[in-house]
Amino acid sequence: MDRTIRSHSLRIRGLRGIPEIKPGDDLAREIVRALTGEENGGAGSPPKPEAGAVFVVAQKVVSKAEGRIVELATVEPRAEAREWAARYGKDPRVVEVVLREAKRVVRMERGILIAETRHGFVCANAGVDASNVPRDCVTLLPMNPDESACRLRAALERDFAVPVAAIISDTFGRPWRMGQTDVALGVSGLRPLIDYRGRVDSSGRPMQATMIAVADELAAAAELVMGKTLGIPVAVVEGLPPAPAKGSASDLIRSREEDLFP
Amino acid sequence: MDRTIRSHSLRIRGLRGIPEIKPGDDLAREIVRALTGEENGGAGSPPKPEAGAVFVVAQKVVSKAEGRIVELATVEPRAEAREWAARYGKDPRVVEVVLREAKRVVRMERGILIAETRHGFVCANAGVDASNVPRDCVTLLPMNPDESACRLRAALERDFAVPVAAIISDTFGRPWRMGQTDVALGVSGLRPLIDYRGRVDSSGRPMQATMIAVADELAAAAELVMGKTLGIPVAVVEGLPPAPAKGSASDLIRSREEDLFP
Repeated sequence: MDRTIRSHSLRIRGLRGIPEIKPGDDLAREIVRALTGEENGGAGSPPKPEAGAVFVVAQKVVSKAEGRIVELATVEPRAEAREWAARYGKDPRVVEVVLREAKRVVRMERGILIAETRHGFVCANAGVDASNVPRDCVTLLPMNPDESACRLRAALERDFAVPVAAIISDTFGRPWRMGQTDVALGVSGLRPLIDYRGRVDSSGRPMQATMIAVADELAAAAELVMGKTLGIPVAVVEGLPPAPAKGSASDLIRSREEDLFP
Repeated sequence: MDRTIRSHSLRIRGLRGIPEIKPGDDLAREIVRALTGEENGGAGSPPKPEAGAVFVVAQKVVSKAEGRIVELATVEPRAEAREWAARYGKDPRVVEVVLREAKRVVRMERGILIAETRHGFVCANAGVDASNVPRDCVTLLPMNPDESACRLRAALERDFAVPVAAIISDTFGRPWRMGQTDVALGVSGLRPLIDYRGRVDSSGRPMQATMIAVADELAAAAELVMGKTLGIPVAVVEGLPPAPAKGSASDLIRSREEDLFP
């Protein structure tokens, strides 16, 4: 992002009117339609996003549009999945899908399965999710969320003729703290980290906070207007000065070698 | 918070004009002064916060106002602090203060000291911080950040005659992901978690995302307008429907017994 001159005021709008997304749907077109539609045009909000607007899009609708859906009827669980599912009252087919999506199992105890995905994200169930999808189906994370973000951003920029950024967000738990928050899985058009290393504080001392994960903070901020049961999978954050920059959500992944909690 | 009917639009303002805070300063008065001052009155923003506004205040200024500052000249490091500091090029007096603040050391390796504070927060250096304080001083976390939030909220409500909420925020790292984000250390006037357990999704299935840490999301959102080098330690989040509720940041602490990464 590298927006060293930060905004003093942000606006975050949840986009109403996005329909149920199905495989093959053009998500960018639905976002444009919703943003220019009546439901979001009122109360002085111009339908066209301002330059530098960040579109935060929930992973679930991206996965649906990209057909990242598994019908559980097609899944044959391995023995380990059957045993673990039986022990904790889970669906063995869902456990099987989780194990397939996991590059590495980080913890598998007390009914909780925390795994590293092929992208390098460490999260519950390797991102496999059964909520807000048809019965007997689960969604997988997008194959390449950065690419998903890039495609969305490009389509939105074509339509609105202003530079924007895009974040694909998902809801992750975390050690030590109760509750989940949204984080960025995919990023396009902004740097996900602001790097303060080498800068000094007001007393001339090096900053203790060295890098701020602004893409994760934007995802968390957007969740506040999305909710989980409201069917609002897209939010627009405005007020950041436009500073188009390359960036990838892989910048947000700490390598296993550098991590103290592997 | 229990704001089941969520807002569709949020505004987040960083408050300019808060002076350097010293021990004994009346932080609430400085916030009122800044909010009603010229610097923040322009651009159609009414100086009075709307009912339900959430004031997010950086831990650093709360700690300073409460005199939670240690002069390093007064600190005699124990042998363990001296050895570890020498090994990693740290100030042994700072390490000593960290060890004093730590109820439990979670990790102490590669120059990184992650500890559980007396409040139950797991974070780097037990919250002891040397940035943005006078040289040869460090700040400690507030003794009771919930009480700090409660006092601030009460004072702001008296002044503005509307119900508001307050969050004391701090910048924490996290396992597996690069960069830091702001989280809530103290909460007053809102519930820090929205509990979706028992609710169903659009397909009638139980929600997979069970609890959302909205107080942490609000802290993260506020950080976006605070920055780290701008001297903006307070943000106001507006647009949430007012729903005064009791809540404590202790709700955000996962017990060691329930945690998979002790």
